[in-house]
Amino acid sequence: MKIKRKTSGIIIIGNEVLSGKTLDTNSNFLCKNLHEIGIECKEISVVEDDEKKIIEKVNSFRKKFDFVFTTGGIGPTHDDITSKSIAKAFKDKLVLNKLAKARLKKHYSDEDLTKARLKMAYFPSKATLIDNPVSIAPGFSLDNVHVFPGVPKIFQIMLTEFIKGIDKQKKIFKKNITTEIPEGLFAEYVGKIQKKYPDVDIGSYPYFKKKSFGVSLIIKSDSEELLDEVCDVIYKYLKKNDGKPRLF
Amino acid sequence: MKIKRKTSGIIIIGNEVLSGKTLDTNSNFLCKNLHEIGIECKEISVVEDDEKKIIEKVNSFRKKFDFVFTTGGIGPTHDDITSKSIAKAFKDKLVLNKLAKARLKKHYSDEDLTKARLKMAYFPSKATLIDNPVSIAPGFSLDNVHVFPGVPKIFQIMLTEFIKGIDKQKKIFKKNITTEIPEGLFAEYVGKIQKKYPDVDIGSYPYFKKKSFGVSLIIKSDSEELLDEVCDVIYKYLKKNDGKPRLF
Repeated sequence: MKIKRKTSGIIIIGNEVLSGKTLDTNSNFLCKNLHEIGIECKEISVVEDDEKKIIEKVNSFRKKFDFVFTTGGIGPTHDDITSKSIAKAFKDKLVLNKLAKARLKKHYSDEDLTKARLKMAYFPSKATLIDNPVSIAPGFSLDNVHVFPGVPKIFQIMLTEFIKGIDKQKKIFKKNITTEIPEGLFAEYVGKIQKKYPDVDIGSYPYFKKKSFGVSLIIKSDSEELLDEVCDVIYKYLKKNDGKPRLF
Repeated sequence: MKIKRKTSGIIIIGNEVLSGKTLDTNSNFLCKNLHEIGIECKEISVVEDDEKKIIEKVNSFRKKFDFVFTTGGIGPTHDDITSKSIAKAFKDKLVLNKLAKARLKKHYSDEDLTKARLKMAYFPSKATLIDNPVSIAPGFSLDNVHVFPGVPKIFQIMLTEFIKGIDKQKKIFKKNITTEIPEGLFAEYVGKIQKKYPDVDIGSYPYFKKKSFGVSLIIKSDSEELLDEVCDVIYKYLKKNDGKPRLF
C-alpha cells in the first residue's frame, strides 16, 4: 500500500515569468529539495503581480496542500505586493515587525533605510520571519504558507536553510533504467508491468542528446523490495530485446 | 486606455517537472513567443499525470483564457494520458484519426507501428491535427485548447510553425532601463510614476551578475508615446542621482 505523503504546492509570483523575460528556476530547485525529503509537489502555479489573483491562489493552495511555498514580490518596489496580498488572504493585517526593522537598520545606514526599504519590514501580524543572510530582508511563514524572495541566489540559500527544519518523510526509493530502444517498442510491455505493480510509479522520458537518443525510465516506490523487483523485470526484458539497458 | 488583449494560459503536464527531474523550459519559450505577437500569458500551471487533475485544469483554463496551450503526455507510454483526458474534458471521445495513422504508418515500417505507437493516432473526434515534422506523431487543437508534446526540441519546432497562424495583436511597446542604483533608493519615486501613469507597466527586477549587481526596469505600454514619456522621466531621475542608467 502507498504511504500517504505530505504534499506541497508552489506559487511563483511575477509578471516577468509570464512575459518570458525570466526563466523560472526556483520551482525546480524547490521540487528537487522537497523530493529529497519525501514531500510530493502536486502543483506549480505562476501568477501575475495582482492582488486578487495572489489571494485566490494562496487560499486555494493552503487548503489543498500541507505546505505552500511562494517566491517573488517581497522587495521594495511598487510591484512587490506579495506580503500585503497574503495578509489579506488570511484576513490579517500588515504590521511593522520590530525585529525585521532592527535588522534592516543595522544593514543599511539610517540614511539609506528609505521608506521603500522599510516596506520590507512589514509582515502579516501572525507571521514568523524566515532569515535572509544575503540581503537581510526576511521572508515569512504564516500558518502553512512560506514566503520567499524571487532572486534565485537569495532564494536558494534561504530555502536550503529553511528546509532543514522540516521533518524528513519516509524516503522515496528511486532507480533509473536507460535504454536505446525507442519508447514505442516497449511501451505496451511496460504499461502491463505498471498495471501489475500499482504501488510502483514508472515514468518514461525520451531524451535527445548531441549524437544519441534514448529513453530514461524513472522507477519509484515507497518499498525498496518492490522497486528492485520491477527494475529487475524491466531490465531483463530490455536486455533480451537488445535495448542495451543501464540500471542505476 | 489599455487595449483589451487576447489572453492565454499554459498547462504543463508531467510528474517529471513536479519531482524536479526536469526543468520546464517550454512555458518560457511559449511565453516569449506569445508576448512577441501581443498575447498576454496570464497563468502557468504544472499538473500531475492524473486524469482528474488534467480535466479540471483544462476546463477551468479554457473558460478563462482565449488560448490554452498544453505540453506533455501525448507519447506512446502508459503515463501519456493527455489526449484521453482532454477528450473527457470536452465530453468527446477518442477516435482513430486516419490521417495521423497514415502518417505514422509511412514513418514507421508496418512491423514497427506497434500498438503503443498507434495510440498516438487517437484524438478527440472534433480535434484538428497540429503537424509534427520531427517525430511525426501530431499534436491537436480542440476549440481553444492546443495540445503539444513535451520534448522541448519537438515542441519548439511545432510551436514556431503553429504560432504563425495566429493573428498578430497590436504590438506591446517595451523598453529597458538598467541602473546601478539599488531598488530601495528609487522605489518610492518609481512607485509614484507608476501611479501617475496607470497605462504603462513598470516592472523592477534586481539582478546579480558575476562582478556587478543592478536593477533592470522593464517598461511597457500599448502607446509608444506614453512609453517614451515615462522612460524619459525615469531616465533623467536616475541620471541626476548618478545611477548610470542605460536606456534601450
